[in-house]
Amino acid sequence: MALAIRGYAAQSATTPLAPHRFERREPRADDVVIDILYCGVCHSDIHQARNEWGGSHYPMVPGHEIIGRVAAVGEQVTGFKPGELVGVGCMVDSCQHCDACAQGLEQYCKEVATFTYNSTDRRDGLPTYGGYSERIVVSDKFVLRVPDGLDPKSAAPLLCAGITTWSPLRHWKIGKDHKVAVVGLGGLGHMGLKFAKALGAEVTLFTRSPGKEKEARRLGADHVVLSTDAKQMAAVAGRFDFILDTVPHQHDLNPYLSTLKLDGVHVLVGLVEPIDPPVHAGGLIFGRRALAGSLIGGIPETQEMLDFCAAHNIGADVEMIDIQQINEAYSRMLKSDVRYRFVIDLASLERQG
Amino acid sequence: MALAIRGYAAQSATTPLAPHRFERREPRADDVVIDILYCGVCHSDIHQARNEWGGSHYPMVPGHEIIGRVAAVGEQVTGFKPGELVGVGCMVDSCQHCDACAQGLEQYCKEVATFTYNSTDRRDGLPTYGGYSERIVVSDKFVLRVPDGLDPKSAAPLLCAGITTWSPLRHWKIGKDHKVAVVGLGGLGHMGLKFAKALGAEVTLFTRSPGKEKEARRLGADHVVLSTDAKQMAAVAGRFDFILDTVPHQHDLNPYLSTLKLDGVHVLVGLVEPIDPPVHAGGLIFGRRALAGSLIGGIPETQEMLDFCAAHNIGADVEMIDIQQINEAYSRMLKSDVRYRFVIDLASLERQG
Repeated sequence: MALAIRGYAAQSATTPLAPHRFERREPRADDVVIDILYCGVCHSDIHQARNEWGGSHYPMVPGHEIIGRVAAVGEQVTGFKPGELVGVGCMVDSCQHCDACAQGLEQYCKEVATFTYNSTDRRDGLPTYGGYSERIVVSDKFVLRVPDGLDPKSAAPLLCAGITTWSPLRHWKIGKDHKVAVVGLGGLGHMGLKFAKALGAEVTLFTRSPGKEKEARRLGADHVVLSTDAKQMAAVAGRFDFILDTVPHQHDLNPYLSTLKLDGVHVLVGLVEPIDPPVHAGGLIFGRRALAGSLIGGIPETQEMLDFCAAHNIGADVEMIDIQQINEAYSRMLKSDVRYRFVIDLASLERQG
Repeated sequence: MALAIRGYAAQSATTPLAPHRFERREPRADDVVIDILYCGVCHSDIHQARNEWGGSHYPMVPGHEIIGRVAAVGEQVTGFKPGELVGVGCMVDSCQHCDACAQGLEQYCKEVATFTYNSTDRRDGLPTYGGYSERIVVSDKFVLRVPDGLDPKSAAPLLCAGITTWSPLRHWKIGKDHKVAVVGLGGLGHMGLKFAKALGAEVTLFTRSPGKEKEARRLGADHVVLSTDAKQMAAVAGRFDFILDTVPHQHDLNPYLSTLKLDGVHVLVGLVEPIDPPVHAGGLIFGRRALAGSLIGGIPETQEMLDFCAAHNIGADVEMIDIQQINEAYSRMLKSDVRYRFVIDLASLERQG
C-alpha cells in the first residue's frame, strides 16, 4: 500500500514552498523505509524549485541531503535494520549494468541515474520526491550507513556538498604532497577546505571577499588569497597542483589557471553555463594544464567519505532551521548569508499536523 | 670567430621572406655546428614572421624543423661527431635546473626555454635564428640523433609537428585499449593519425571536409566522422578516451567534448585564443571530462619519438620546395593546400650565391 507523506513542495516555478501531502510507493523487496530526521538545503534545490535549469516537474519536493532512521526494510534487504542511522544523497537508483555503474560511479550512469527528486523512478515510472518530507523509500543500494560518531545534523550536507568536493579530491589522488586551492567559501567550499586539509594537502582559499581569513583558517586553509588583488594572484602563479572550483556562477577562470603548476588541474564542480569569459588555450597549453569537471560522487565513495568523516571528526558547519523557514532560508542563501549550510529539522513538520 | 650565414629572413611583419646574410655565434665548448639539409615549414613560422602573436623581432629567420649533418663539435661535446645526421626542433636551450627541465620537459621550463628563432640566447643575449639557413649552432643538449632508417626529408617535420602530437599521446599513455580521435588533417593531424595508429589505438578522424576518407585511412584512421553532420556526431557520443585537437583556429569544442567517454580528455595543441564559442561546464562535469593543452615536447621524448619512427617506418608526408618558393608555400599553407608539410631543401640556397 502506498505511503501517505507530509512534506513541503513547490507547486510551480513561481510559488513559495508550502505544506504538501503526497504518496510514496509501497516498499519493494529491496527498499529501505527511512524516517527523515534532517535534510540539508542545497543551492540546486533553489535552481530546480524555480526551474532555473529547465525540466522541473511540479509539485516538487526538493532535498537530497537526507539523514534519517530506518523504519522498515524489504524482505531482500540484508544490510540495514530498523533503528539504524542512514543517509540518502542525490541519487536513489541507476541502471546498475553500465561501465560507470560497474565502477561504482552511478552519477555517470550511461542511462542516467534516478535522482532523489524531480526525476522519474526507473522501475515504476512515478515521480521521485526529496527530503523536505517526513519519510522516504529508497532501494538499499542507494542507502548509506552513517557511522557512529558522526553528528547526524552536520552529516546531512555531506550527502551532496561533502561528496561533491570529496570525489574530485580522491579521484585526482590529493594528499600530503599537494598544494590545493579552493575557490569560493560556501557550502561546497567549506567542505573542500576541511577535506583537502584532512587529506594532508597544503590548502589555500581563493576568495573575492576580504575578511574571510580567520574563518578560512578555522576551516583548514593554510593561506588565503584575495582573487581580486592582482599582486596576490601574481604571487601564487604556477603554485597549485589542484584547484577545486566551487563557484556556482560565471567567473573568469583564466587568472586561476595561471596559478596552476605544470600538469595542474582545475576542477569545476559548479555548473557554469557557458564558461564566460572564455578560457585562453595558452593557459592550458603552456603548462599542460587541464580544466575538468566532476559531478557529485558514487555510492561507494560516498560511504568512504562518511567513514572518513567519522574517523576524522569532520562534519559540515550547519545552521538548523524549521521547515516553515525554508523560503526565508532560500532568500538568505541567494545573499550568501549562511555559514555554511542550512539543515532542516524535519521534526518541525509536526507543527502543521 | 662568428660564422657568416646565408638564409632567408622577414625584415618586417609585412615584407615577404627574402635572402639575408647574418652571423651566428662562435661555437662554444658544448656546441654542435650543423650544416642544414632540410627544414620543415610550420604554421607558427607564418604567425611569427607576420607578428600575428606579437613579440616578433626582425630580421627574423624562421624554421624549427631542422635536419642536418654535424659539421663540427665543441671540445666538451661527446655525443656527436662530424658527419652524423642530427635534428633540431623548437628549442635550443633552457634553464636546465627547474623542475620541468629536471623531468626532461624543457618546453615547460619555468624560466622559459630559448626557442630556435625569434628568441634571445640565454647565455650571450644575442637573437636566435632558425633553420631557413645553411648552418646552425646549437648546444649539444638540444641536438637530436636521427636514427638510421629515417628518411631525412620526412624526418624534418617530426621535430615540431611530430613531437607536438607524440608528446600528449604518450603523456596520456595512449595504447591499444584506447579509442582516439584526431581533429583536423594538416601537418599535425596527419602525424596524430600515424602515431595513434602505431601506438595501437582505434583511430578516428574528425573533419569538416567530405572526401578525406581514403586519405585518412591511408594515414591510419579506422573511421572518419564528418563533424558538420549532426547524425554522425550523435553516433559517436561518449565514444572516445582521447581527442587530439590540432585545429589552429577558433572552433566550437562543445560537440567534441560530448564524444568523450567518462574520464575522457580533449587536448588542444593549437593555440585557440580565446576558446570561442565558450565551453559549457556541463560537458566537463557530466562525464568527469577534461580539456587540456600540450606544448611541443621535451628533448628526451623527442628522441624517443625519432627512435620510434625509425622502428615503425614513420615519417611525415612532405612536399619538397626550394627556399625561393617559401612565400608561395606560405600562401598555399594558408589555403590548406599542402599534403602535409612543406620541407625546404636548403641546397637551393646555393642558387643565390
